[in-house]
Amino acid sequence: MSLLFARDLAADIQAGRTTPRAVMEQVAAAIADREGEVHAFAALDLDAAFEATGLEGLAARPLAGLPVGIKDILDTRDLPTAYGSPIYAGHRPRTDAPAVGMVRRAGGIVAGKTVTTEFAFLQPSATRNPRRLTHTPGGSSAGSAAAVAAGMLPVALGTQTAGSVIRPAAFCGVTGYKPTFRLLPTLGMKTFSWHLDTVGLFAARVRDAAFAAAAISGRDLDIGATLAERPRLAIVRTARAGAASPEAHAALETAARAAEAMGARIFDLDLPEELEAADAAQPTIQDFEAALAFADELDFDRAHLSPLFAAHLDAARAIPPDTYDLARRTAKRARQKLGDLFGEVDALLTFSAPGPAPEGFATTGSAMFNRLWTLLGCPAINVAGLNAADGMPVGVQVVGRFGRDRQALAVGNLVETAISR
Amino acid sequence: MSLLFARDLAADIQAGRTTPRAVMEQVAAAIADREGEVHAFAALDLDAAFEATGLEGLAARPLAGLPVGIKDILDTRDLPTAYGSPIYAGHRPRTDAPAVGMVRRAGGIVAGKTVTTEFAFLQPSATRNPRRLTHTPGGSSAGSAAAVAAGMLPVALGTQTAGSVIRPAAFCGVTGYKPTFRLLPTLGMKTFSWHLDTVGLFAARVRDAAFAAAAISGRDLDIGATLAERPRLAIVRTARAGAASPEAHAALETAARAAEAMGARIFDLDLPEELEAADAAQPTIQDFEAALAFADELDFDRAHLSPLFAAHLDAARAIPPDTYDLARRTAKRARQKLGDLFGEVDALLTFSAPGPAPEGFATTGSAMFNRLWTLLGCPAINVAGLNAADGMPVGVQVVGRFGRDRQALAVGNLVETAISR
Repeated sequence: MSLLFARDLAADIQAGRTTPRAVMEQVAAAIADREGEVHAFAALDLDAAFEATGLEGLAARPLAGLPVGIKDILDTRDLPTAYGSPIYAGHRPRTDAPAVGMVRRAGGIVAGKTVTTEFAFLQPSATRNPRRLTHTPGGSSAGSAAAVAAGMLPVALGTQTAGSVIRPAAFCGVTGYKPTFRLLPTLGMKTFSWHLDTVGLFAARVRDAAFAAAAISGRDLDIGATLAERPRLAIVRTARAGAASPEAHAALETAARAAEAMGARIFDLDLPEELEAADAAQPTIQDFEAALAFADELDFDRAHLSPLFAAHLDAARAIPPDTYDLARRTAKRARQKLGDLFGEVDALLTFSAPGPAPEGFATTGSAMFNRLWTLLGCPAINVAGLNAADGMPVGVQVVGRFGRDRQALAVGNLVETAISR
Repeated sequence: MSLLFARDLAADIQAGRTTPRAVMEQVAAAIADREGEVHAFAALDLDAAFEATGLEGLAARPLAGLPVGIKDILDTRDLPTAYGSPIYAGHRPRTDAPAVGMVRRAGGIVAGKTVTTEFAFLQPSATRNPRRLTHTPGGSSAGSAAAVAAGMLPVALGTQTAGSVIRPAAFCGVTGYKPTFRLLPTLGMKTFSWHLDTVGLFAARVRDAAFAAAAISGRDLDIGATLAERPRLAIVRTARAGAASPEAHAALETAARAAEAMGARIFDLDLPEELEAADAAQPTIQDFEAALAFADELDFDRAHLSPLFAAHLDAARAIPPDTYDLARRTAKRARQKLGDLFGEVDALLTFSAPGPAPEGFATTGSAMFNRLWTLLGCPAINVAGLNAADGMPVGVQVVGRFGRDRQALAVGNLVETAISR
């Protein structure tokens, strides 16, 4: 299982060392080899993808004709979009989600739709963890994480409302990057929670994610540049540290020491109470909005919802508007507090998940170490490279300042480089 | 032409003095009388609306069976939704926009879809101003404003991205209320700009708008309560004061003096430069996002866009991402500055529009006095009641603090009461 490195492949295409068609052949071969057991794709049209490699001027565009997977929670005009639900089986959206249009205009080829859990919630999907087929790949962006981890795609879009990018990236051992809130537009995504839904992406290494995000968004995310010589990195274990496994604690410690050896200034940070309060408020915001966003499905298609999701929406409907408004004010206070905090640190280093991927498929794992950062809107990166004793990946999470994605990615790259030495 | 007073009608139904069916008969009679010349409706199903009046328990719900118009930019599952564009003629959304679902759950009856300009942009619609049929009703929520002004509906939803609620309300002489950003969800609205699009509403008087918004949103917006005895009201003429007509200046002055006579403490306020900078930044945010939101329509259905909108989108596509990011930071600074300002004032009083409705249909008027408040997300109310010498209405605008909608509405009610004495 070898990963596809987006940045190197694009450079090779642009230098004439390979072609979009040759890359697509690699992808097709990997899919032929692995998809039968991994089940990463909800829809696939390799003929159309091969045809698209012939497009004039593709190599000159930023993504240079690289194949990109799109989580099946985002609308595509040329591939069915089912949002992981039988209610929308065969649904053909009229327009691309803007994020998908941005991929195409950047010279990416939409190779397929990747599996999402039902409406990006917690009901496990059919996707398997490529690192060990007996384990969950996490959720909800299960197919995107698994496709990149299985070497079937160099880049895939996912989305995160609580922990749906960082968690599956950690479980599958690839880079997951949740940008600053709204760096990539969420329009054309099946909405779960409009104050939380965030489009992110998966790639092999941090530099590949930075490269792809820069190409798609048109932003300067050059991580070679301007990182403080000795970045200040705060280790944040949170009030939920007791729920993190020994493997997760060991990975965090290893990453911190490795970064320190490369010059980072490391210190421990207890989260201020405003941030812990916001962590507790995230489900209120998520669920109040979900009850509105899925009102029609609950009222008219209840029989086609998983019992898990239907029951969750029933409970969500009971959240009073005032409780929701209070939760939003709590989040606002926490954002201000976090802004102050980032005057003293360059990035936070914390758990990506409570531990490696759980065995079996009863659960997609927990978002307890992700939901706060989604709520606060700041960039977060799962850095891969460390493994538990049994060989399963354990990620660590770098969290940056709102709007300072380049710096967050640069720190992520530093941590990744440090732990691979 | 007599307006329908939502608050009184609901109270009458709940007290047994009238019934939802009798109100619907009033509405049907007004529509039969005026719709032929006003053209406020894009779709109408009075049979279904009459049938809905028979629903069990309707009178006990907050809206008590009142008919509500829905701007045809919001999805409805039982009425076609064309977004004012031939591209979507006959389009039948699968689900209600959550705001529409909230209307129904509050006991409102969706009586029809009201005319929007093409995709809520500036191309004039077929709707006429009920106060004078030779004049524009404004835009983009033309049908909602006109239907309420013509006495055809007691309540109608509209949306505002720059000035599309306040401006038509001012031109048609009714209350327009743009709540705090996201008090009502925008999901299921044809997106123009996700950082600006705001669902608002139209009603006869401020107390009717407050009543309807409270019923739909489940928030306490009781304007009878807790207004400071002598509210501090800042008159804001802005750097664009020179573009306001003598009628607009006179209306602002009249409203200020009337409020003062009722005890308000009035003073002049020059907008800090951070706010003027944000005013100038609003089009950058609006248009950058519109270029993404309408990418598919521009690429695949250009022939069915108005030349005005197509040319606007072409220009919008050229806005660099960095310019957009800078505009967002400008807006963020202005929000902080405005928050500080509201420590010293209870509400702002400013122009709703540069003057009364322009004659003819070449333009829907200007949003120059609205776009800043949409960008900053704070509640804004068009207060009706004043007229120019020729009898056409001239509105004044009350702007409140973010999230303090009840106070903004209470001040609006005070100004409305003051100018009617």
